[in-house]
Amino acid sequence: MNVAVLSGGVGGARFLRGVVAVIGSDNVSIVGNVADDIEVLGLRVSPDLDSILYTLAGLADEERGWGRAGETWQALETVAQLGGESWFRLGDRDIGLHLVRTELLRSRVPLSEATERLAHALGLGARLLPATDDPLRTFVETPEGTFPFQTWFVARGHRDEVDAVHYAGSPDATAAPGVLEALGAADVILIAPSNPYVSIGPILAVDEIREALERRTVPCVAVSPLIGGRAVKGPADRMLLRIAGGTSPAHVASCYAGLIDALVIDEADVPADAPVRLVVTRTLMTDLEAARRLAAAALDAAGAPA
Amino acid sequence: MNVAVLSGGVGGARFLRGVVAVIGSDNVSIVGNVADDIEVLGLRVSPDLDSILYTLAGLADEERGWGRAGETWQALETVAQLGGESWFRLGDRDIGLHLVRTELLRSRVPLSEATERLAHALGLGARLLPATDDPLRTFVETPEGTFPFQTWFVARGHRDEVDAVHYAGSPDATAAPGVLEALGAADVILIAPSNPYVSIGPILAVDEIREALERRTVPCVAVSPLIGGRAVKGPADRMLLRIAGGTSPAHVASCYAGLIDALVIDEADVPADAPVRLVVTRTLMTDLEAARRLAAAALDAAGAPA
Repeated sequence: MNVAVLSGGVGGARFLRGVVAVIGSDNVSIVGNVADDIEVLGLRVSPDLDSILYTLAGLADEERGWGRAGETWQALETVAQLGGESWFRLGDRDIGLHLVRTELLRSRVPLSEATERLAHALGLGARLLPATDDPLRTFVETPEGTFPFQTWFVARGHRDEVDAVHYAGSPDATAAPGVLEALGAADVILIAPSNPYVSIGPILAVDEIREALERRTVPCVAVSPLIGGRAVKGPADRMLLRIAGGTSPAHVASCYAGLIDALVIDEADVPADAPVRLVVTRTLMTDLEAARRLAAAALDAAGAPA
Repeated sequence: MNVAVLSGGVGGARFLRGVVAVIGSDNVSIVGNVADDIEVLGLRVSPDLDSILYTLAGLADEERGWGRAGETWQALETVAQLGGESWFRLGDRDIGLHLVRTELLRSRVPLSEATERLAHALGLGARLLPATDDPLRTFVETPEGTFPFQTWFVARGHRDEVDAVHYAGSPDATAAPGVLEALGAADVILIAPSNPYVSIGPILAVDEIREALERRTVPCVAVSPLIGGRAVKGPADRMLLRIAGGTSPAHVASCYAGLIDALVIDEADVPADAPVRLVVTRTLMTDLEAARRLAAAALDAAGAPA
C-alpha cells in the first residue's frame, strides 16, 4: 500500500513517525511544506523538511520539540557576539546541514534533489519531497502589517493576529519532481495534523497539487491539529478563530473543502456537523505509540487495512 | 610610537601579541595576509586575519596552535556525515565568525570594513587591516601541478615541493583603505616571523605596499621564521631551500631585498654574511614572555625605544 502524506513541521513529523511505524517507511511519500523556508546568515533553512528529516532519522530533540538532539549553539553565540543576525535559532549540527544544502542549491541542484541526498545520507526510508522547487513563501497579514512567515512566527513570536495568509510565488509554482507521481500512485492520501494555513495551505497553493487532490480516486483523510479547539502548540487555533470564524471540526474541515473524505478529530472536540465524515480518537501524540495509534486511525478512516 | 606590522597567521599572531605586550595595542597597525583566504561551504574564510583576531582577543587555542579555544566540531561532523565538503577544518565558533563575515561581504561591505567590525566586536585594540580588499590568491607551482594555496597546504598536506609561488590578482590589487596611511604614519615597520613566500609575499605583491616599503624613511625590521634553518611549523624551510637555494639568514633576507634594514635571527642560525644587519636573539615564542622579548628585540633593532 502506498501512502502519500502532506505535512508541515514538528506535529507533522511526529505523525509521520506514526505512519512509518504502522506501514513501514518504504511505501510512504511525504510532500513537505517549504513556504516557511528562510535564508538567514546566507544559509537556506527549510524548517519543516528538517523537522521531518530529523524526526524520521531519530535525530530530533524530543524534549525541546524541535531541532536536533545533542545540539550545541556555539556558532550562533559567536554570531551574536559579533553583532550578526542571531534571532533565528540555528544549532551547530543544524548549521552543518544548512551549509550542505545551501552549497547544493548554489551549485544549481534543485531543492528536491538536495533533499533526497540529505534524506539518503540520514538513512531515511520514506521519500521526502518538497512540495515545490520554486520559490514559494508564506506571508501573513496582520493589523501590524504584512510579514514574511518567519519574521512573524519567530522574530515577533506570532503574537500578531492574522487576518489573511498568502503564498508569494504560488501562481508560478509547480509541483517538485516526484510529487504528482507520489499522489497519483497513492492508495491513501493523508494530511498530517499541521497548521492548515501556514503548513498545509502553502502545499495546496501549488495548483498542480491541489488539482491532484481534487481529481483523486483514492480516499484522502486529514487529521485535525486541534484538541478541544486548541492548538497543541503554535497559533493554529487563533488563526482558525479569526480567519475561519471558529475552531470546531467543521471549521478545520472547511480549510480542506473538496479535498478530504474524512477528518480525524480528538475526543475532546464536539463532533458537530461537518461537511465530511468525522472520526473520533485520541490525537495527542505524547509518544511514538500514540503517534502510531493516530496514524492507524487515520489509515483506518481511509478504509486502508492497518 | 606607531608601529606597523606585516603579518601572516599563527606565528605572526604570536609575534603581534608580543608587540602589543611591549608597546600597547593602540599604536599598532597590522597589515594581514589575505591570499590564503578561501571560500569553503559558501563561507569566506580568512585564516590569517582570524588567527590574528583570535590570538589578540585571547580566544586562540594555544595548545592546538590554531583556531579558537573551547572549539567544537558539530557542524563539520554533520557536513561530513551528509557528504559535504569537510576537508577544511572549521569549528563551530569559527563558523559563527565566517557566517557574519560572509554576510557582510555579500551585502557589499569590503573585507577591510568587515574585519574592522569583527575586530571591534572582539575588543581588539590594535588595528587589523587586510593587505587588500581585492581578490588576491596564492597559487603554488609544484611538480604535481599548480594548486590554490589551501588545496596544497591543507588538502595535500603541503607535501609537494614548491618550485614557484604566484599571486593571482596582484597586478590589479590595491592596498586596502588604511594600509598606506598606517605604513606612512609608522615610526617602525616590522615584518613578522611568517612564511616569506605564502604569508608576507602576497602582501608585498600589492604594488602600492611594496612601493611604500621601498620609499620608507623609517626602519624596517623583519624577523626570520626559521630557527637553525628549520621552520618551527609549516613548509617555510623547504620552500626557501628549493626556491631561494638555502635556509641561511642571507636567504631569508633575500626575500625582502631592498625592503628591510635588519633581520632578527635565532641564536641557532649561523650569522653568516647577509645584505642587511643581523640581530641575534632567541626567536622561539614558547609563551607570551618569549614573544614579548622577541618583539622588544625587533623594535630595538629598529632603533626604537622599547
